[in-house]
Amino acid sequence: MQPIGFVKSPYKEPRDVPRGLGAKHEAEGELEVLPEFELGLTDIEGFSHLIVLWVFDRSGGYELMGMPPSDNRPHGVFATRSPRRPNPIGLTVVELVRRQGARLQVRGIDMLEGTPILDIKPYLSSIPAENLRRGWLAEAEERANGR
Amino acid sequence: MQPIGFVKSPYKEPRDVPRGLGAKHEAEGELEVLPEFELGLTDIEGFSHLIVLWVFDRSGGYELMGMPPSDNRPHGVFATRSPRRPNPIGLTVVELVRRQGARLQVRGIDMLEGTPILDIKPYLSSIPAENLRRGWLAEAEERANGR
Repeated sequence: MQPIGFVKSPYKEPRDVPRGLGAKHEAEGELEVLPEFELGLTDIEGFSHLIVLWVFDRSGGYELMGMPPSDNRPHGVFATRSPRRPNPIGLTVVELVRRQGARLQVRGIDMLEGTPILDIKPYLSSIPAENLRRGWLAEAEERANGR
Repeated sequence: MQPIGFVKSPYKEPRDVPRGLGAKHEAEGELEVLPEFELGLTDIEGFSHLIVLWVFDRSGGYELMGMPPSDNRPHGVFATRSPRRPNPIGLTVVELVRRQGARLQVRGIDMLEGTPILDIKPYLSSIPAENLRRGWLAEAEERANGR
């Protein structure tokens, strides 16, 4: 695995990233793709949204059970987006605002400044919201809303 | 990077996987998580859909421009789901049918039998279909439909 580029983000430290229930990810930033991979971005500007795979490079080790910032109960790592995963790969869906050569200006950043990017894929389709069940997260939201 | 498990799939060879415009991915299969990671699946059964990250382990090298099976024009690798990527990571959204211990029965498999799994994440939210632009893929679909 080798970085294909790096994230330019307003978030310098983990504590800067909005977390927990209702956290909004509307920050703008850039995906700076390395020059040798720029050709691979051909036609990407036609897509409104991209899936970015990246490395949790400031996270060490993993734990199979953990307490997410959006709940006060522990859950299995594969049922959360915890950075402390067996393979420390992060996934973020971003909105593509503009492409300038090898730099993609995007909205919806939740990565830290300098995060290594492993892959960019086009976002092709969605599961309709009415078909989704969201397990412990939906329960935590209901508890937070006092229902 | 180390596998957390392996895919049990009806597809033995790349040619077995439905490809191209309108290809449906409704095959059922299993995500067999290794025993040492089973605890990490705690509470996963509450989610209807999962994001699976896996390795294109039968694909060698990469090409920055390629012809996808759904079009007769080449596009940049980061604007396609080509297996021949700088970092050969695949992503599939599957529907979770049933969990039996460390085995997740899922629908929507497009991986080959024995594919190494890197990560499983809960599918938490969708971009509404009306907000999506799908670039060359939408254009290829329109041409195929003779519009």
